[in-house]
Amino acid sequence: MSIFGRISTFRLRPGSVSHFTTSEARLLKIGDILREKRVFLDEDVQEYAKVSQDMNPLHFDSELARSYGFEGPLVHGIFVAGLFPRIISSHFPGAIYVSQNLQFRLPVYLGEEITGEVEATQIRENRGRYLAKFKTRCFKTGGLTVIDGDATAVLPSLAVE
Amino acid sequence: MSIFGRISTFRLRPGSVSHFTTSEARLLKIGDILREKRVFLDEDVQEYAKVSQDMNPLHFDSELARSYGFEGPLVHGIFVAGLFPRIISSHFPGAIYVSQNLQFRLPVYLGEEITGEVEATQIRENRGRYLAKFKTRCFKTGGLTVIDGDATAVLPSLAVE
Repeated sequence: MSIFGRISTFRLRPGSVSHFTTSEARLLKIGDILREKRVFLDEDVQEYAKVSQDMNPLHFDSELARSYGFEGPLVHGIFVAGLFPRIISSHFPGAIYVSQNLQFRLPVYLGEEITGEVEATQIRENRGRYLAKFKTRCFKTGGLTVIDGDATAVLPSLAVE
Repeated sequence: MSIFGRISTFRLRPGSVSHFTTSEARLLKIGDILREKRVFLDEDVQEYAKVSQDMNPLHFDSELARSYGFEGPLVHGIFVAGLFPRIISSHFPGAIYVSQNLQFRLPVYLGEEITGEVEATQIRENRGRYLAKFKTRCFKTGGLTVIDGDATAVLPSLAVE
């Protein structure tokens, strides 16, 4: 299990109130961004392949991957996209995923540092829960987008853990 | 690694030619459906949680899940959705995923038999490769849809393995 390179950050939009004390709950607002970095290593891809039973040779066979114009084996796209529910549920335990749209823009290679980012774009209260829409994006060092799309989740509370 | 309950089938639309011999390659056509069943067990969810680092208590805490109106802990939606690239790449090794849209309609519980299904809806040749669009759906016994959406992938060939 790789935790190398993983950093969790909660960033508020410039201009929004950011001087919370420990006793105040930080409440999610439109424009807030939650972010996390992860490096996907060979053993992560092996483990994911095992549990998902997805043995596409593109994830293991360097020669095949290069014959397709890639630099080497790719990390499974939907495994990388798992960063989005992971980010949302780590800050809102008990979040229920409703939808996720994914565009895979660029390959993710073993060992690359990938940042996952979710930005709240809509929040609607409904009977004590919150339907939140997020812009979701993963990017490499340098800011190149590798995955983008959006997600919707039901949050039990707007308090950011 | 659970292979319990997994069956892979290639079904042709009624009316299309289905009397292939072993020497003939089966070529994907619009309307063709590829399907696979899987039962997600507790150990699968534990393994997925470890590799994805997604520790949402909804996947482990029966009491919390029931307090939300569920029957028990849920399988991670994006883990179930991994059936789609798994089905596509097992029949088209080397397939490159381009997009995946997902609507999570119903919870998937531990031990339920889930069928993943991809149906070719568009196929476009481009310089010796094929951009294929699929309707993607997972359903429970009885036919209840748990996930639907669509996917696009680049296939190295239309031959169905």
